Amino acid sequence: MTEKISVYSRDKMDLMQRLKRIEGQVRGLQRMIGEDVYCVDILVQVAAVRAALTKVGLNLLESHTRGCVARAVKEDRGDEAIDEVMEVIMKFIK
Amino acid sequence: MTEKISVYSRDKMDLMQRLKRIEGQVRGLQRMIGEDVYCVDILVQVAAVRAALTKVGLNLLESHTRGCVARAVKEDRGDEAIDEVMEVIMKFIK
Amino acid sequence: MTEKISVYSRDKMDLMQRLKRIEGQVRGLQRMIGEDVYCVDILVQVAAVRAALTKVGLNLLESHTRGCVARAVKEDRGDEAIDEVMEVIMKFIK
Amino acid sequence: MTEKISVYSRDKMDLMQRLKRIEGQVRGLQRMIGEDVYCVDILVQVAAVRAALTKVGLNLLESHTRGCVARAVKEDRGDEAIDEVMEVIMKFIK
Repeated sequence: MTEKISVYSRDKMDLMQRLKRIEGQVRGLQRMIGEDVYCVDILVQVAAVRAALTKVGLNLLESHTRGCVARAVKEDRGDEAIDEVMEVIMKFIK
Repeated sequence: MTEKISVYSRDKMDLMQRLKRIEGQVRGLQRMIGEDVYCVDILVQVAAVRAALTKVGLNLLESHTRGCVARAVKEDRGDEAIDEVMEVIMKFIK
Repeated sequence: MTEKISVYSRDKMDLMQRLKRIEGQVRGLQRMIGEDVYCVDILVQVAAVRAALTKVGLNLLESHTRGCVARAVKEDRGDEAIDEVMEVIMKFIK
Repeated sequence: MTEKISVYSRDKMDLMQRLKRIEGQVRGLQRMIGEDVYCVDILVQVAAVRAALTKVGLNLLESHTRGCVARAVKEDRGDEAIDEVMEVIMKFIK
């Protein structure tokens, strides 16, 4: 149990750090627009921030699957949990 | 058990039908190229076939999660099954 | 002019070959489903076919931009051509 | 000319506003993680922020194509401009 909690806290800290960095990158994008940086350079940076956000989504998805979904499956409530996770995956894959 | 098998067969038949249709669409794309159809119309059709293929991927992913992953979780081999499924999800989300 | 046509024919032949290969891969997927291959292996292959189709889309998009869009821009009909191409790009990026 | 500049400024203001909103959403995500909000709700929000960022990318891409790329095409430097824009599009479509 203790180990589980600490794993979860580590995941949380990692997510927080990633989101802090993404917040800084989004501010950086505003600065680039303000300073009339060449649009292609801004676009490359938008793609990088988007990729960083996708990584956050994948990490959250993984810890959700390992935690809540696995628990639901063990407690025979797996079907709804899987419906729910499939729906959220569809928001990322199109 | 019987019900599970029949659900699985139904899924298989549905996937087969979707793939048959996609095969026809891919042949249709070759015809469009051969007949010099306007590129934007071909592109719209490529996007449609790609979406159909994505749907096949999502359906397979769902039945894999409901079947193999859920079974692995119940038999306490969930971790590897989830690693594997996350890796394949990453091939679709980028 | 002659050179332009030959470049276009080369693009067409390349697209045709790619689509032929994709058609074969889609048939391969049907075979995999029929033979009850492990779902994750099928999913990996679905992702590969999807990536191949995306490449076809990108190649078509590039030759459309270099050909039709560039010509439209030179003839001062660029705005509609760009509207149209942006709309089709949105079908691929979501 | 004047009109062109004002269109560009309007685009810039719109991008700035979108990025300000995205920055707020990214801070909101950190709050959600801190408050242990249910992971699926966070994931839905990550997908929404990602979609908002994609929209910023598409808008930038459109104004870049209408501006820099179209100008390059008219000045017979279209090829490099199109190479560059295709490369950046590939960072969004995969």
